[in-house]
Amino acid sequence: MNDAPCALVAVDWGTSHLRVWALGSRGEVIGGRKSDEGMASTPRDQFAAVLESHLQALSVASDIPVVMCGMVGSRQGWVEAGYLGVPAELREISENAVRISGGTRDIRILPGLSKNSPEHPDVMRGEETQLVGLSRLVPAAGGDTRVVCMPGTHSKWVHLTGQRVEDFASFMTGEMFSALSGHSVLRHSLSTGRVDPKSTAFLEAVRSSIDSPSDISARLFSIRPAGLLQDLAPDNARAKLSGYLIGEEIAGAISRFPVPGTIELVGGGDLGRLYLAALSVASIDCRVHDGDQLVRAGLTEAASAIWKNAKRLAPGND
Amino acid sequence: MNDAPCALVAVDWGTSHLRVWALGSRGEVIGGRKSDEGMASTPRDQFAAVLESHLQALSVASDIPVVMCGMVGSRQGWVEAGYLGVPAELREISENAVRISGGTRDIRILPGLSKNSPEHPDVMRGEETQLVGLSRLVPAAGGDTRVVCMPGTHSKWVHLTGQRVEDFASFMTGEMFSALSGHSVLRHSLSTGRVDPKSTAFLEAVRSSIDSPSDISARLFSIRPAGLLQDLAPDNARAKLSGYLIGEEIAGAISRFPVPGTIELVGGGDLGRLYLAALSVASIDCRVHDGDQLVRAGLTEAASAIWKNAKRLAPGND
Repeated sequence: MNDAPCALVAVDWGTSHLRVWALGSRGEVIGGRKSDEGMASTPRDQFAAVLESHLQALSVASDIPVVMCGMVGSRQGWVEAGYLGVPAELREISENAVRISGGTRDIRILPGLSKNSPEHPDVMRGEETQLVGLSRLVPAAGGDTRVVCMPGTHSKWVHLTGQRVEDFASFMTGEMFSALSGHSVLRHSLSTGRVDPKSTAFLEAVRSSIDSPSDISARLFSIRPAGLLQDLAPDNARAKLSGYLIGEEIAGAISRFPVPGTIELVGGGDLGRLYLAALSVASIDCRVHDGDQLVRAGLTEAASAIWKNAKRLAPGND
Repeated sequence: MNDAPCALVAVDWGTSHLRVWALGSRGEVIGGRKSDEGMASTPRDQFAAVLESHLQALSVASDIPVVMCGMVGSRQGWVEAGYLGVPAELREISENAVRISGGTRDIRILPGLSKNSPEHPDVMRGEETQLVGLSRLVPAAGGDTRVVCMPGTHSKWVHLTGQRVEDFASFMTGEMFSALSGHSVLRHSLSTGRVDPKSTAFLEAVRSSIDSPSDISARLFSIRPAGLLQDLAPDNARAKLSGYLIGEEIAGAISRFPVPGTIELVGGGDLGRLYLAALSVASIDCRVHDGDQLVRAGLTEAASAIWKNAKRLAPGND
């Protein structure tokens, strides 16, 4: 924790994790907390106490505003912050923030985004704030089309035009990987190691799914007989499962969105490196963004709009 | 158990179940046993004792031959019966039966089929005997192409030309249903009831996957927001999951095999009715066959070939 005065607290409160950052007047991080007190493990009447314990630990004065995003705003969270239907302008996200009543602090929760289409309903909560952050850190020209890929348990792909979210879709890739690697016959074939994004097994698997996406459920099964008949190594089996599923996601995203030659990829780390390699198989280049940095920038941007009179909350504009 | 003399014992010994039938000289069932002493729960040194207990219960004399198929012939089974590579003639299956050494009974295990292709290896064990039975009960003309669909945990699709297995593929459909309904976010959205094959939710889901198979992992996720945003009923959520996965399997099979207007569907029961309805969405008609009947006919046919001098084992030819 450095000695600059705290101007804003930014909170990303997801299903399984809680991140709290104390930010200075220029958006710089002056202190942070990380915890596994996620929404799912926090009883409704404990949200206030959990947050307060972290704010105390960061010595945040009671007049400093707090802005939050993520599952904390879901029906099972602290206070429901609803969903904004797409298409939506990014500025509408802060306009629809919900204030938590009672207490001495000014605390707001940002809404999620939803798509209420009969054929393909969808929701996101948390990622919309990263989109706000992306738009702040890497502004798009007015009518520019951008496609954003946000890998994860439920990966999101988003189609933006300027500051407007046109459409998005979630892909079950991460969760299918967990379910199949832990709870299917494939569990006998896989290592538990890290997948090498440069391995032939991974890259060829991505290519197979992109080239013939209709065949995914046969392709997934083939990992088992490849172990029986061809001594497929457990590390390569794991790489194939990952590659088949990520390739299928890319095939679906390409069929759904006007994917340009360069997209915005949110997330470094091991998963980001796998997506970067997989996207290159599809001849898609990426600008890579750090997810935490985007969410902080998005929360800061939202705070600037919510508390307009507090000029200290507009870092980057001074 | 009726009073006709037993001429053959037919055994289908799978991963989780064991079926034993005492058959008369015309292939008629004169007694049967069903048990959950599957291959997976039977220690290697107990296979002989388990089988003998059922033969004793059926009062089968020690000179009656026994023919078996299924996972009992796998590496983890009683004695490994290997795999025959495809393309293969159906008669090669009985020609490659493995005899169990020692003991007083003449017991044979039929091999499985394998496909050792670098891009798509595959195996089956048990279903090959149903193919032999199908060919016996519903003979094909010499060069006729037939496609067989065998729904299950790992559904099999098989391409036959006359008596020859040209190609086959396994689809993880049943296991993906179990893994996703039990171990993903979708578990919150699904009922535990039976899926109605006539329901709009099921049929529309099949249609979606057939029409845009690349989109499967986004489509699967959409079941969750449909519950949140559109009050999708849990029965319909289950029907959608089933329909999306079965539709994806059909899309894959169509892209892989020369599927004619009428195929052979193995399996009645609830699952067979779902496939029958799903295939009709793809304008594919089915001749429906009972799986147990096919496996008995296949074991009987194999026995006739193995013990050629025992004319009593050629029911249907007299």
